Amino acid sequence: MGERLVVIGADAAGMTAASQVRRRNREFEVIAYEMGNHASYAACGEPYHIAGIIDPIDKLIARTPEQFARAGIDLHLRHEVTAIDLDRRVVEVQDADGETSLEKGFDHLMVSTGARAFVPPMPGRGLDGVHTLRTLGDAAALRSIADAGCGNAVIVGGGYIGLEVAEAFHTKGWAVTIVEGLPAVLPRTLDADLGEQVAEAVRSMGIDVFTGAMVEQIEGTDRVTGISIEGGSLPADVVVLSIGSRPVVELARDAGIPLGETGAIAVDDHQRTGIEGVWSAGDCAEVQHRVTGRPVNMHLATVANKTGRVAGVNITGGDVVFPGAIGTAITRVHDLEIATTGLRSSDAAAAGFDVVDATVSGGTIAHYMPGSEELTIRVTAERGSGRLVGAQIVGGSGAGKRIDVFATAIWDGMMAGALEWVDLAYAPPFAPVWDLIAIAARKAAAAAGA
Amino acid sequence: MGERLVVIGADAAGMTAASQVRRRNREFEVIAYEMGNHASYAACGEPYHIAGIIDPIDKLIARTPEQFARAGIDLHLRHEVTAIDLDRRVVEVQDADGETSLEKGFDHLMVSTGARAFVPPMPGRGLDGVHTLRTLGDAAALRSIADAGCGNAVIVGGGYIGLEVAEAFHTKGWAVTIVEGLPAVLPRTLDADLGEQVAEAVRSMGIDVFTGAMVEQIEGTDRVTGISIEGGSLPADVVVLSIGSRPVVELARDAGIPLGETGAIAVDDHQRTGIEGVWSAGDCAEVQHRVTGRPVNMHLATVANKTGRVAGVNITGGDVVFPGAIGTAITRVHDLEIATTGLRSSDAAAAGFDVVDATVSGGTIAHYMPGSEELTIRVTAERGSGRLVGAQIVGGSGAGKRIDVFATAIWDGMMAGALEWVDLAYAPPFAPVWDLIAIAARKAAAAAGA
Repeated sequence: MGERLVVIGADAAGMTAASQVRRRNREFEVIAYEMGNHASYAACGEPYHIAGIIDPIDKLIARTPEQFARAGIDLHLRHEVTAIDLDRRVVEVQDADGETSLEKGFDHLMVSTGARAFVPPMPGRGLDGVHTLRTLGDAAALRSIADAGCGNAVIVGGGYIGLEVAEAFHTKGWAVTIVEGLPAVLPRTLDADLGEQVAEAVRSMGIDVFTGAMVEQIEGTDRVTGISIEGGSLPADVVVLSIGSRPVVELARDAGIPLGETGAIAVDDHQRTGIEGVWSAGDCAEVQHRVTGRPVNMHLATVANKTGRVAGVNITGGDVVFPGAIGTAITRVHDLEIATTGLRSSDAAAAGFDVVDATVSGGTIAHYMPGSEELTIRVTAERGSGRLVGAQIVGGSGAGKRIDVFATAIWDGMMAGALEWVDLAYAPPFAPVWDLIAIAARKAAAAAGA
Repeated sequence: MGERLVVIGADAAGMTAASQVRRRNREFEVIAYEMGNHASYAACGEPYHIAGIIDPIDKLIARTPEQFARAGIDLHLRHEVTAIDLDRRVVEVQDADGETSLEKGFDHLMVSTGARAFVPPMPGRGLDGVHTLRTLGDAAALRSIADAGCGNAVIVGGGYIGLEVAEAFHTKGWAVTIVEGLPAVLPRTLDADLGEQVAEAVRSMGIDVFTGAMVEQIEGTDRVTGISIEGGSLPADVVVLSIGSRPVVELARDAGIPLGETGAIAVDDHQRTGIEGVWSAGDCAEVQHRVTGRPVNMHLATVANKTGRVAGVNITGGDVVFPGAIGTAITRVHDLEIATTGLRSSDAAAAGFDVVDATVSGGTIAHYMPGSEELTIRVTAERGSGRLVGAQIVGGSGAGKRIDVFATAIWDGMMAGALEWVDLAYAPPFAPVWDLIAIAARKAAAAAGA
């Protein structure tokens, strides 16, 4: 038997690493412990299960325990690692029933404990009918509620998941209200004016949106009956708290694995923690932001998969660098596509960049073709050089994935003035002859004085 | 009065230059001569007019003569420039009725004579019912035919325009046959196996496709009745020759303006011809291929618009470089999206590159979402370095515009191994967590040994 890898947390990062290790070296013994009921599932698909678009829920499971077994990965669900002993190089494991307790030695340890939903200490958060959405179990519970009959759903938090869950309950016939504490929806990824465009689209569906509205408490005795916000209260038969997520780092921290400035596990560009043979990847670990060069903690499936892959290659003696992330994200609300990459001007200013914004609106396709829809692109570029640092897109069908061009350009350090001239694809059903990407880049270059 | 710019040929390149000149310097006198009946129209939209998707045809006119007049551009339709005298710096102009003949002096001359449909010297090409598609008049004529009643339409040439016109006649209820002389459709832009995928999609609509079939003659006495190909003949009530286009250079050549190795007008990266004050842009001019560094003659609306803009800026004393083109193109046939950029391996080999191909297939969106469609991406990269030189895409909805990521990456000289890690946007309705772009790039990097 070769070396042993123990994986703590069997979702995207952990199981990508595990699979990569086994694929590259069949001599490796790979054991994975997952405290939950499922490994390797597509959390991003959960809102679509609640909406009834994806059925049954098993479709969200990328690989079953049997499939992992066939790949030579010894996966244990409902097994929690309760402690890591770095001196003895063992983990302590407890099964969910509390019946089995064991120690397992490791040569390599992969800490991929992920993230959990953030629940602020607000009164009433423990009431029946108050939910978060993270695991498949969470999704199944919310689907049951959504199916059981219509009532009032209050979604606290207007981020990506909040908007998606709101639309899901709306699809199921519920009266839905979104309550966002900050002045606009999608406050972490869109500028407020673009967020307002999204909020208007959501309102046009018949969903109420309150922004700048802090929840004071969740009301009810055993079951939730409503929530109170400043100036009033809203009836609620179900409340979904979508206020963000936090890295799960207690186990690592208690073991003495160093955390970084963000509070997540610090890793180098090979996914090595400060401890020999101990690796980390996914939502619990920091990554370097490719534009600022600073550590960030992004909870994105893409980053989890990529960093897990990097860890897996390097655990088996490879030499792959994770080249950083820029936070590219996308979603759809009703007919509106929303995407972002890199830094907004407020983020950039906070990171010490001197930047300018350029905003343009136009059509997704040739204006004379039926089906042309409006899209808005905002580009953020460094003053003087014109270096691209961020982009935001809100628009109709075909708008969102245009963000990938900006992601590629930002990734490669391109200037706005260069992107203007890139030979982008044109045909009437796909774009105007000057794709709005080029026009946005041109305006950004001009605004930057580049 | 300031300097005078005379523009020969008032379509995309010429009128973009004219508009740019007037926008940058109101002192410029700008006179444009166009031998046709329309200026500045969207030729790429013509097949959609024939199909009845765009109506009326005026929607394809970007700007009317009145609009140009308001912008201070003196546009003369149906006026042909019959000679350029570079010594005296005058052009000779004849109106279409042959009534007016005049000379006009110029300080700057913009040669934007465009391209014409290529018609090989085949017997019967002059018969009634034999058409090409280039001008709005051509499009109007074909629309009238398509509307007048259904019969047999034979489209000679399986390039972009041929496929689009075939679908248009099919939409109108005609029995349509495509005859392509080369072994596959889209022979200039797709590898043969991917072309065959397109041909299968076209056949599934009920359109006949013959490849490797040379037309021997067009049959009929006054009107076309059929065409003969090796081994048989096909009945035809209308024949559309879509065999490509050729730059219109006779006027420039006869005046002594140098042509390049492609037969189009040679220009530098500022759109200057070899003659002081004489500029050229659009389909009649060469551009530098950004990957090979060699001159090419691409008949693409995007390139015409961009080179026209460059000329306009530089005519007014600006200093803008046209940074080259890579031939990015896209179309849709039925439900299939088809796109290409850069060099195929055969093109690359001909240009002296040692390259490898990597081909991958997967879903346009998360496999568990309804609506996921198949797409295939082929990436061409330089052996050893892994530098990206080309990409081809065939697939369902959302597949085609992914080409822009490759165009951006090729444009900026990226390696396949770098593109693999770019932070592309993921959400279940838009992409799998590893977008097929990244998987294709990874395979290309591996194949290149990079």
